[in-house]
Amino acid sequence: MLIIGEKINGTRRRVGRAVRERDAEHIVALAREQVDAGADYLDVNAGTSSDTEAEDLIWLVETVQDAVEVPLCLDSPNGATLGAAARVVERRPMINSISGEPGRLETVLPLAAELGGPVIVVALDDEGIPRTVEDRMRIIAGLVAETRAAGIADERLYIDPLIMAISTGDDAGVTALRTIAEVRATYPDAHVTGGLSNISFGAPARRFLNQAFMVLAIEAGMDSAIMDPSAPGIYPLMMAAEAVLGRDRFCNRYNRAYRAGRLDR
Amino acid sequence: MLIIGEKINGTRRRVGRAVRERDAEHIVALAREQVDAGADYLDVNAGTSSDTEAEDLIWLVETVQDAVEVPLCLDSPNGATLGAAARVVERRPMINSISGEPGRLETVLPLAAELGGPVIVVALDDEGIPRTVEDRMRIIAGLVAETRAAGIADERLYIDPLIMAISTGDDAGVTALRTIAEVRATYPDAHVTGGLSNISFGAPARRFLNQAFMVLAIEAGMDSAIMDPSAPGIYPLMMAAEAVLGRDRFCNRYNRAYRAGRLDR
Repeated sequence: MLIIGEKINGTRRRVGRAVRERDAEHIVALAREQVDAGADYLDVNAGTSSDTEAEDLIWLVETVQDAVEVPLCLDSPNGATLGAAARVVERRPMINSISGEPGRLETVLPLAAELGGPVIVVALDDEGIPRTVEDRMRIIAGLVAETRAAGIADERLYIDPLIMAISTGDDAGVTALRTIAEVRATYPDAHVTGGLSNISFGAPARRFLNQAFMVLAIEAGMDSAIMDPSAPGIYPLMMAAEAVLGRDRFCNRYNRAYRAGRLDR
Repeated sequence: MLIIGEKINGTRRRVGRAVRERDAEHIVALAREQVDAGADYLDVNAGTSSDTEAEDLIWLVETVQDAVEVPLCLDSPNGATLGAAARVVERRPMINSISGEPGRLETVLPLAAELGGPVIVVALDDEGIPRTVEDRMRIIAGLVAETRAAGIADERLYIDPLIMAISTGDDAGVTALRTIAEVRATYPDAHVTGGLSNISFGAPARRFLNQAFMVLAIEAGMDSAIMDPSAPGIYPLMMAAEAVLGRDRFCNRYNRAYRAGRLDR
């Protein structure tokens, strides 16, 4: 599982304040916490209005990459912002994201192709949230046709099936799981990721819903997640899911994580 | 999910001592702890040698049923022991278990038929541990033919697919999950149960392996488990699995469990 740490997101009130006030200490703490907990990439999203977003994201990139060694996942709906941030990034970044929403493809796709790193592809277009597995697969097919045409190999794609809150409908989890399985079967060279904690939005005791969904998503074929790896129990459960599914030979990774003290939380 | 509390088992050293010393306080504490955590049945297994097992199990039955209101799951390989314990039981018990092991069927089946309650049917015969899904289904088919011939409706069966430790082989979890799904499809009126914590025997940080396996087993069709409901996180995760699988309308049960303070651990 490739873990993309989700916590440095300016749409969260406390992070938004840290961005506006240039509170590097708070941002660095979030970065270290996630890297210590196992993050492979750190998502950085300024979450601010479009007139300051580019300089805010550049500040975030510089602040985070000065503090930790992992590569970043540049997160903005705006291709120009992503391009500006990409110019100051040290390690080849992941791009979050391409979708069928108006303006995204035109501005983000050429940048992603040029950068040469991983790209998140979200099953969204300009017609609102696609409800069915079929609608999502149709949108994904359109987007993958574009990424292929732009010369981006499927291996670089992290396809996001769109994880919606079960508080919006009892079938939200099952729809996401089925889409994950379909994506896995249809695009065997691509990866599958998604915003794990979306599943529990609006619900109480969110962490158990996130945990249960993650286990099922791993079985369905998800091999990456945009998540908080420092949330209690989530990292050990991720390792455990792979072990009980027979995907961890002799439980070697699980045992190693145990000896490294990573299964204590 | 029907939860069968596993902790009052004399093959565990501390419980075995409590049985020999007639330490009712220890047994009652285990009973209350499991009922408070959500157990629907309590398994009672004396775990002692055959010459004292019947009187030991009778003592356990009387000790536990004086303290808590839930029905018991009488657990012994010996039909005569089960019969003796059944005579002192107040609420209709579950029987653990029928299998194809020598002597089991002949002595336990008539008793189970007579008692009229739920019966655990284990995918075991006299040829050692069946390794494949096919071998297990063949054994189960033979046993279900016997229970049906004895007049036991499938609704009363709790079929145990045999959960083996992943430390004995990387495919142990997947074999159990596939057997669960096959049993669910082949015997739609029967229930599926199993010893959850077997999956993690011999491994470190066992609770995460138990948790991950439980979530996958629920998806595969398991609707009961022989488990420790007081283990941290397992009860909330069980509720969460049903919610994210869309099996908890409007998350009503999850929300109710939250309000009742049952998702705190």
